[in-house]
Amino acid sequence: MSATSLLLQLIVILTTARVCGWVLRHVGQPSVVGEMAAGLMLGPVVMGALFPSLHAQLFSKESLQGLSSLSTLGLVLFMFVVGLELRSTKTMREQLRSAGYVGVLSVVVPLALGIAISPALYPALAPKGVGFWPFALFMAAALSITAFPVMARILKDRGMTRTPFGQLSLGAAAVVDVFAWILLAFVVALVGAGEGYAGLLKTTVGMAVVLCALFFGLKPAFAWLLRVKAPDGEPSTTVMASLMIGLLLCALVTEWLHLHAVFGAFLFGACLPRDDRLLKSLTERIEPISIVVLMPLFFALAGLGTTSNAFSGASMGAMLLIVGVATVGKIAGGAVGARMAGYGWRDSLATGSLMNARGLMELIVMKIGLDAGLIGPELFTMLLVMALVTTAMTGPLINLFIGRKAPMADAGDAHRTPAKP
Amino acid sequence: MSATSLLLQLIVILTTARVCGWVLRHVGQPSVVGEMAAGLMLGPVVMGALFPSLHAQLFSKESLQGLSSLSTLGLVLFMFVVGLELRSTKTMREQLRSAGYVGVLSVVVPLALGIAISPALYPALAPKGVGFWPFALFMAAALSITAFPVMARILKDRGMTRTPFGQLSLGAAAVVDVFAWILLAFVVALVGAGEGYAGLLKTTVGMAVVLCALFFGLKPAFAWLLRVKAPDGEPSTTVMASLMIGLLLCALVTEWLHLHAVFGAFLFGACLPRDDRLLKSLTERIEPISIVVLMPLFFALAGLGTTSNAFSGASMGAMLLIVGVATVGKIAGGAVGARMAGYGWRDSLATGSLMNARGLMELIVMKIGLDAGLIGPELFTMLLVMALVTTAMTGPLINLFIGRKAPMADAGDAHRTPAKP
Repeated sequence: MSATSLLLQLIVILTTARVCGWVLRHVGQPSVVGEMAAGLMLGPVVMGALFPSLHAQLFSKESLQGLSSLSTLGLVLFMFVVGLELRSTKTMREQLRSAGYVGVLSVVVPLALGIAISPALYPALAPKGVGFWPFALFMAAALSITAFPVMARILKDRGMTRTPFGQLSLGAAAVVDVFAWILLAFVVALVGAGEGYAGLLKTTVGMAVVLCALFFGLKPAFAWLLRVKAPDGEPSTTVMASLMIGLLLCALVTEWLHLHAVFGAFLFGACLPRDDRLLKSLTERIEPISIVVLMPLFFALAGLGTTSNAFSGASMGAMLLIVGVATVGKIAGGAVGARMAGYGWRDSLATGSLMNARGLMELIVMKIGLDAGLIGPELFTMLLVMALVTTAMTGPLINLFIGRKAPMADAGDAHRTPAKP
Repeated sequence: MSATSLLLQLIVILTTARVCGWVLRHVGQPSVVGEMAAGLMLGPVVMGALFPSLHAQLFSKESLQGLSSLSTLGLVLFMFVVGLELRSTKTMREQLRSAGYVGVLSVVVPLALGIAISPALYPALAPKGVGFWPFALFMAAALSITAFPVMARILKDRGMTRTPFGQLSLGAAAVVDVFAWILLAFVVALVGAGEGYAGLLKTTVGMAVVLCALFFGLKPAFAWLLRVKAPDGEPSTTVMASLMIGLLLCALVTEWLHLHAVFGAFLFGACLPRDDRLLKSLTERIEPISIVVLMPLFFALAGLGTTSNAFSGASMGAMLLIVGVATVGKIAGGAVGARMAGYGWRDSLATGSLMNARGLMELIVMKIGLDAGLIGPELFTMLLVMALVTTAMTGPLINLFIGRKAPMADAGDAHRTPAKP
């Protein structure tokens, strides 16, 4: 019986995700937007409202533990690959200063705006028992996140990855990620630790120990393992198993430190040697199941966590405020940063628009917030809508600012090269 | 909290599986024997007896649903790959007659012995409400199964895959699989349908419809999809997603027909086009997660389903009887068949020994029997021990019968070629 309901859930979720992804790809959206929309559609807002008894039967409370386990594994594998893909290209290093401007400003502006709107949101939307500052800092982190993978995908689809503007945005997104995730880790530790500053200290010291163990222990150990056992970049079953056990261990330790498993998974990916063949073969081995099968479950569970209350009259104001502030903060921050680095207005606005794509990273942040009790289902729903809207507007905004046609990569479009100050 | 316990379970299970696999590989056993042993060790018989409170905490009843969902997905993916790898080589077709002798006899002899010992086992070991014949036929199917993948692995490890004896065994295992799985499907339908012959008729008609839909609908559809969308044998994300949805759908339909999801998964794999590049790229994409991460969970859950009652005085007799009958039936059946096909005694006994390796296929059969209520935990434990023992004895028996050294593949060891009658 349990196998039947699981298989049925998987089929419904995968089919909805693929159909939505396919439809939205045909209007020029990256498929992740479709998959996020599919999650929302499977939740109480759409499917639950249209077919309440079917919905209640298919996604009964008891049946969600299985889905949730599959989604946890998918999330850990996904964040591992994100960490694995984190790398600084030569161009990025050259553009470090420009990327720094854009990155810092497109964190600081949304962050400040997130704190600024928190007094308006806190009374109605914060769960009981959550202090103002953890709530405000979480909102700040939620608004300042950028989805590196979605951005990379949008740039790749348009053949803009290797343009100066593309490199600038990717570099800036890496800077943003570092800031936003550290902030998020800090907020979660603040709340999760529970025992005030003593708990925070424990988490901080624990993380310091983990980072040392990772970079001085695991990193050389796995570098050696991969050099000896997978010199051709093709890890054997034993190597794969060791990697998986190491990955799960890292995820478990960060979870124990009152952080979240995704941090450990990301760090473990980031600590593996930068090797293109290894990256390719690991991605080939992990992505098909984790991206195709497991991640749509994560989106669906996010959708199941939403509530239609968020679409009532009073809440709509808060939702519009969040979407507006998130968009303005990111685009303005990114664009001003790019201008300061010497880029033209069009490229600068396009850069800001790219920074505004939050994609599934926002969903991960939201899940962390929900798991930590920092937000409730209403705010969770609003942030999901915000993530959908900001990610979906990225493509059209880029079309608006720098045109629909992909500029020739590497073809020396010198007019886009910033005048170095 | 739930993520913590899942991560912890995964780490313990994967580590135990790898360590046991590694230890047993060093005494010449295929790693699957180690992984099966790891499952048994994590169950109540070893870990539960040694560290009862730790065991109860780590594998609490409520926490098993997550593991079980992951294992169901793993099993479906695994059986899909098994179906995918089912293919007749040219040599196999040439040896069809010989393989037929071996195959039929190494099904019929254990099957007859399985029915013969059932009257002795039925009173004490059959669950309440199960009729004698379903029980006896299930025992017959459980004794007559052969693990094609384990056999292929053992032959490959010894460089014997392309010897006449290796080809004969592989061909015979394919014949055995067809017979044993049809028998098993019949038994499960008999019991699962519940409403006697009307239910059985429903399942039979349903299966006929499914087979027609598969071979006249899905097979050409996916052949077309793969030809158009993956002409280089490298399925894109969309193709992978379609394959996964088709696979889950097949698994769901067989589950609905009171069969088991594994049948649908296997059939779906078997209905895809025979294409080496496709096989390679699908295997590369599916095996790392399904074999490395998910299948050990299946072994662990099997281990958790065992009971130490099976090792009490009275039960030991039944266990020895099962192990003995299983071994004698397979080796004798296979050897007599190979002799009839004109092989020498040594090769014939080695062939029989290979047919005796039941590996994880037996565990799948056991799980089907347990899910269908055909056997209880005690008999489940005995069959697990039988699967372990028969698989573990295969290597040493082959060493005994045809020597430790791998014969040169393709090197024309003519003395092993059967005198064609």
